[in-house]
Amino acid sequence: MSALSHRKATANLRLVNADGTPLANSPVTVKQTSHQFLFGCGAFDSVALMRAKESGNEETATFLQNRMEKWMKLFNYGTLPFYWGRYEPTEGQTMEAPTMAAAKWLKDHGVTAKGHPLCWHTACADWLMQYSNEEILKKQLRRIDRDVTAFKGVIDMWDVINEVVIMPNFDKYDNAITRICQEMGRIKLVKAVFDEAKAMNPDATLLINDFNTSVAYEILLDGLLEAGVPISAIGIQSHQHQGYWGAEKLHDVLRRFSRFGLPIHFTENTLISGEIMPAHIVDLNDFQVDSWPSTPEGEARQAAEISEMYTILFEHPLVQAITTWDFTDDCWLHAPSGFLHADNTEKPSYHALRKLIHEDWSTNVTLQTDENGRINLEGFQGNYELCCGTLSAKLDLTADRSATLTLS
Amino acid sequence: MSALSHRKATANLRLVNADGTPLANSPVTVKQTSHQFLFGCGAFDSVALMRAKESGNEETATFLQNRMEKWMKLFNYGTLPFYWGRYEPTEGQTMEAPTMAAAKWLKDHGVTAKGHPLCWHTACADWLMQYSNEEILKKQLRRIDRDVTAFKGVIDMWDVINEVVIMPNFDKYDNAITRICQEMGRIKLVKAVFDEAKAMNPDATLLINDFNTSVAYEILLDGLLEAGVPISAIGIQSHQHQGYWGAEKLHDVLRRFSRFGLPIHFTENTLISGEIMPAHIVDLNDFQVDSWPSTPEGEARQAAEISEMYTILFEHPLVQAITTWDFTDDCWLHAPSGFLHADNTEKPSYHALRKLIHEDWSTNVTLQTDENGRINLEGFQGNYELCCGTLSAKLDLTADRSATLTLS
Repeated sequence: MSALSHRKATANLRLVNADGTPLANSPVTVKQTSHQFLFGCGAFDSVALMRAKESGNEETATFLQNRMEKWMKLFNYGTLPFYWGRYEPTEGQTMEAPTMAAAKWLKDHGVTAKGHPLCWHTACADWLMQYSNEEILKKQLRRIDRDVTAFKGVIDMWDVINEVVIMPNFDKYDNAITRICQEMGRIKLVKAVFDEAKAMNPDATLLINDFNTSVAYEILLDGLLEAGVPISAIGIQSHQHQGYWGAEKLHDVLRRFSRFGLPIHFTENTLISGEIMPAHIVDLNDFQVDSWPSTPEGEARQAAEISEMYTILFEHPLVQAITTWDFTDDCWLHAPSGFLHADNTEKPSYHALRKLIHEDWSTNVTLQTDENGRINLEGFQGNYELCCGTLSAKLDLTADRSATLTLS
Repeated sequence: MSALSHRKATANLRLVNADGTPLANSPVTVKQTSHQFLFGCGAFDSVALMRAKESGNEETATFLQNRMEKWMKLFNYGTLPFYWGRYEPTEGQTMEAPTMAAAKWLKDHGVTAKGHPLCWHTACADWLMQYSNEEILKKQLRRIDRDVTAFKGVIDMWDVINEVVIMPNFDKYDNAITRICQEMGRIKLVKAVFDEAKAMNPDATLLINDFNTSVAYEILLDGLLEAGVPISAIGIQSHQHQGYWGAEKLHDVLRRFSRFGLPIHFTENTLISGEIMPAHIVDLNDFQVDSWPSTPEGEARQAAEISEMYTILFEHPLVQAITTWDFTDDCWLHAPSGFLHADNTEKPSYHALRKLIHEDWSTNVTLQTDENGRINLEGFQGNYELCCGTLSAKLDLTADRSATLTLS
């Protein structure tokens, strides 16, 4: 059994013409058109693109349109920003319009969108701090009601709560969410926000997400699952500004977080193509530089690390999603963290990942039907198009199946 | 309000003679005879003493008797060993007899005994490993039934489970408890053993105990308390072979573990009077030396660190117990970790702690009664003896009170 057999499915197909006669002894080209696995990236630029279009800023719109076209060639999964302080900078005035436009635009392009995050102590709304803890919690839950309901059917995947391990101990500045987490304790707060999201969209995929991959996060999950928190998938951040984790740490993290039997999403991956951030920095946000150049040797290293890391994760049966955080350089921390430079030109990592997703992990073959029109197809899970001359049909190959398929 | 006012109580007393007449205008000496606070130490030598007496080994018995007399001059609280592998080296053959003799002997000397531990992956019984996980759990719970029941009334304080943070990840060697912890998860196992101990002795003080003082232990406690585990007190180990934590870390640990509002016990304290163990050692047991000398400068340092640490802990309202692990040098890891050298001679730390407990934190005063026999006493919580000439009375001053006391 190959290391990737769990990523594949088989179809025993009988191909027929529109009149029901077998498509006998014919060559059929089989082309994978989408992946079931979620290959993701931050898609914040899609919101910027919607705003540029809305405001008639054509130069920016063209630049971002070009960027997002390159984005679409790699990814089927995008993270959209719901940071409370930016989404609702003044109480009651939200960014729903451009965010909804972006989410629908992604959906129309076959991209699954995830909202990030519904509850977090960082980038939180300052106006919340005027309220009592009881009122803050009410507003937090109402915020979840409002946004999960508004986006239902467009966004059905949410990072419900972010960075809970540190949440009550976070002491860089006062904020409303640390206050209520200190008062309620982690488990009661997480349960409250998950239960609320679940009630608003019972079929949604609900994630918890953390950068802490130590035993503390394992134990948090122990407690949350024991308390019945409806976690759909475990989110693991992997911002590697201080150097690639390497295969050994990756396998260790996968082993420890597999114990729960839940799907694992690598939610925020960063591998950089420049100088490595010094190891003594504890909070990555403390590393403030004006510029952080990408270098040729750094770009080669980044491409190799991306290839190794994605391969290890794609081989692990519980991993269902990998999201790289920055699509382009010079975003968070000005890091050279993208697949593109800031001017949208492609870096080696772009081509390395494109080769993995769209060549190595895609199935594109030509098969010959027998006299009954039968073919046996094994392919990476996803959607397919089958063509024979001018005839074609679509095929859903997300699981093993047997079917009669009409090409027309 | 002084930093120690929470350690004191006041008594408004009317002292009377046997015939009920006021003991008017008389000097009364007030002497503290015991402390409510638990000043503890490992008392494993009391078991060795019982065995030496039992076997008629007089030389050893005399040596240990001398040692334990020095022990009794400092402490009112002792830890007794219940390591499963040593307590029951062959299934069904236990060390109950000498352990019970030691526990009763301690009790007769006014010492509260604690059993350590009922469940732990280290020093566990190898014979358990022949059984299925289901059977191991049953035997673990039956072991708790047996020992908690047998010692009820003699030992009513237990370290129920030890070092749970690492328990399922412990990979130094296979053992029965790591196996069941991996299968059940931390919370279900901890709940099972606590519920069992609680059922056997509902009034017992039940501790969880860990050397891990990171956020992982905090989060474990979050989950356990949320799951309704009947934890009476949080046990914190502080083996400082690699150097004194210092006031800052101590205050940080106290702040973080105070959040639960539960009593805090420092269960296993070590400060050494020799060379410091190198910082790169992760598991202290990996540091194997044939001898580890105590030095004059080390002994001065140890005494100063003991004084500072005990003072900080005694000042914290939630701390109810401090136990130093080794009473004498050359025990665990051969470290110079005791208040006595291995030959029972006293080290400066012995006198430093004795001064704190029995001078600075004891109340011994002479008061003058008024014409109605009244005195107002403020003293450290504990038991007292009041004397006036040949008359005397005992006084329980564990809480504020008003009373009429007959001296006879």
